[in-house]
Amino acid sequence: MNSSPVLDLAIDLISRQSVTPEDAGCQPLMIERLKALGFDIEIMHFDDTLNLWARRGTQAPLFTFAGHTDVVPAGNLNDWNTPPFEPTVVDGYLYGRGAADMKGSLASMVVAVERFIAEHPDHKGSIAFLITSDEEGPFINGTTRVIDTLTERNEIIDMCIVGEPSSTDYVGDVVKNGRRGSFTGELTVKGIQGHVAYPHIAKNPIHHALPALTELTQIEWDNGNEFFPPTSFQLPNLNGGTGASNVIPGEVHAMFNLRYSTEIHHEQIKERIYEVLNKYDFDYDIKWTLNGEPFLTDTGDLLTAVVDAVTTVNGKAPQLLTTGGTSDGRFIAKMGAQVIELGPVNATIHKVNECVKAEDLDLLADMYQNVLINLLGK
Amino acid sequence: MNSSPVLDLAIDLISRQSVTPEDAGCQPLMIERLKALGFDIEIMHFDDTLNLWARRGTQAPLFTFAGHTDVVPAGNLNDWNTPPFEPTVVDGYLYGRGAADMKGSLASMVVAVERFIAEHPDHKGSIAFLITSDEEGPFINGTTRVIDTLTERNEIIDMCIVGEPSSTDYVGDVVKNGRRGSFTGELTVKGIQGHVAYPHIAKNPIHHALPALTELTQIEWDNGNEFFPPTSFQLPNLNGGTGASNVIPGEVHAMFNLRYSTEIHHEQIKERIYEVLNKYDFDYDIKWTLNGEPFLTDTGDLLTAVVDAVTTVNGKAPQLLTTGGTSDGRFIAKMGAQVIELGPVNATIHKVNECVKAEDLDLLADMYQNVLINLLGK
Repeated sequence: MNSSPVLDLAIDLISRQSVTPEDAGCQPLMIERLKALGFDIEIMHFDDTLNLWARRGTQAPLFTFAGHTDVVPAGNLNDWNTPPFEPTVVDGYLYGRGAADMKGSLASMVVAVERFIAEHPDHKGSIAFLITSDEEGPFINGTTRVIDTLTERNEIIDMCIVGEPSSTDYVGDVVKNGRRGSFTGELTVKGIQGHVAYPHIAKNPIHHALPALTELTQIEWDNGNEFFPPTSFQLPNLNGGTGASNVIPGEVHAMFNLRYSTEIHHEQIKERIYEVLNKYDFDYDIKWTLNGEPFLTDTGDLLTAVVDAVTTVNGKAPQLLTTGGTSDGRFIAKMGAQVIELGPVNATIHKVNECVKAEDLDLLADMYQNVLINLLGK
Repeated sequence: MNSSPVLDLAIDLISRQSVTPEDAGCQPLMIERLKALGFDIEIMHFDDTLNLWARRGTQAPLFTFAGHTDVVPAGNLNDWNTPPFEPTVVDGYLYGRGAADMKGSLASMVVAVERFIAEHPDHKGSIAFLITSDEEGPFINGTTRVIDTLTERNEIIDMCIVGEPSSTDYVGDVVKNGRRGSFTGELTVKGIQGHVAYPHIAKNPIHHALPALTELTQIEWDNGNEFFPPTSFQLPNLNGGTGASNVIPGEVHAMFNLRYSTEIHHEQIKERIYEVLNKYDFDYDIKWTLNGEPFLTDTGDLLTAVVDAVTTVNGKAPQLLTTGGTSDGRFIAKMGAQVIELGPVNATIHKVNECVKAEDLDLLADMYQNVLINLLGK
């Protein structure tokens, strides 16, 4: 395929080695382009993480493109057919670390906004970019802190497209209109240590925990809904014992993780788990971690605009799914924003020879531009 | 108290630093005394372990004293009131590592035999000593290999007193007329590793193992009998998981240990466990270790002789118990021998300031001598 402004920008971004949490000059490149369009630029540097908040306009609704400039490490360089930070187009595919996750999306966003503003310099509402260099890392100093900052000053995002690679077979076949929540508990069940030859003066915490844990694995938490599969409970870790065959241990540790739908709140999950454990005769404690609350955008202007935009480009409506892990969308949805994830095909993300079909980036830019037209151009 | 031949020999033995598997000259000392009595001496040196088989007479029945010259380490020397390998009598108690477990018993055995033979030089049957330096260690090259050697040449022990410290409050208040068996299984339950966000394409082995393990802990194996408490099943170890909260592990490992009575055979235990596991839908395998089969001496000449001998000395019959861990008695009982454990008070064994009441060693020698009279002297 021939060169295009989207492809050129994607290549420029990929060539900057922004392995998480480095930005490596990606945000300055975007800032240069956005400044030229009249965006107000605010750099939020939190510890090791560079974040960008760029906004054009002061009115509502506030529409935001969210994404990240950091990438996962390249892995073994010998396994790559082309150097991961020397973006190369081969047979219509752009290869390089971050091509699909998600520098391609960033390029499409920037070019879409440039084209939209050229046609609608006095658009309705506001357009913003929320870009971080900490999405592939511990996500402590990235999007979540930008959202905290915005919330504090009551600058509320109404609608947001996250550029995560949502597509499966071709660009826009799937958009994510929500994500499940993730909730983790670290349970310690306490017993009394002793010699296996004298079980009557010990209390084996493994024996005591087993029926309770069995019961937890058998709970039907909810039936899910149109957009979410039923909430699922998993025990990824269970550890007790000294290694010796003749010692009854004093404690056993179980970690459980729930991927939960919007049909249940994490406080309800907690309550239900306490209810089960309290039926049994043992001491325990639990350390809880709320990794992310679920979100769902099942109605609203954004969903309508995205479905229309994708349908216009593809001649076919996208499938709405909430599958997969967590994304930074969870932090943005917490504000009350409508959030949709729309990005390229995710088949090669985090792998060697990560790539994206070059023309998909132009299609994606068209989709993003159509969303802007639908929401702020009419 | 005044000096006595038993006390003198015990002191001589304790002063030899025979920390397992060292013998440190203890067996040569015993050999010297036994040779003088006409015993045939056979030294069985297996790898790091010194074993002694000494026999006087060729006729049946073959009565044997069994014991060990090795001791557990002294631990922190600062915690001892007297040096552990400088045996010291204080207020009628002999202090030193091995005083109770079981150099005191060895001294009582030797002196008892000397006195018995002086009175019954032409005693019935045969008297033997089976002494090892590997009872406190891994018990691989000790009693079990001597028994294998004797069994191969068809030299069968009929009756045996093991000198383990069986007593609780005063010497001879308890004799052990059996021990429970110990049987260990290391179970691996196999699943399919995966991401917790996609449980439908993984198979969590922890979830699958839980109800099966619960069922195993709830089995009533037997009701024990007059001499044994019911068989008990314990899970000393249970381990699964990668540590991460988002990975369903591929395997979970459970170790179980049964302390079992003579009411059940380990093959029946095995069968029952397979029966339970096979009801469930998972792949697994088990590595079995038979640590020791149970034994019981609930009738026979030896039991009668021991009860009579103790009652004669104490004016009170001993209590017959099978409690506690395993002992070398299990290897000897395997031959078909009647086995009884009779030794001093065990309150201080394996502890700092290990001690034995000095006059108990003379009482113990009297008991051993009475047993010999009852069995071989009349």
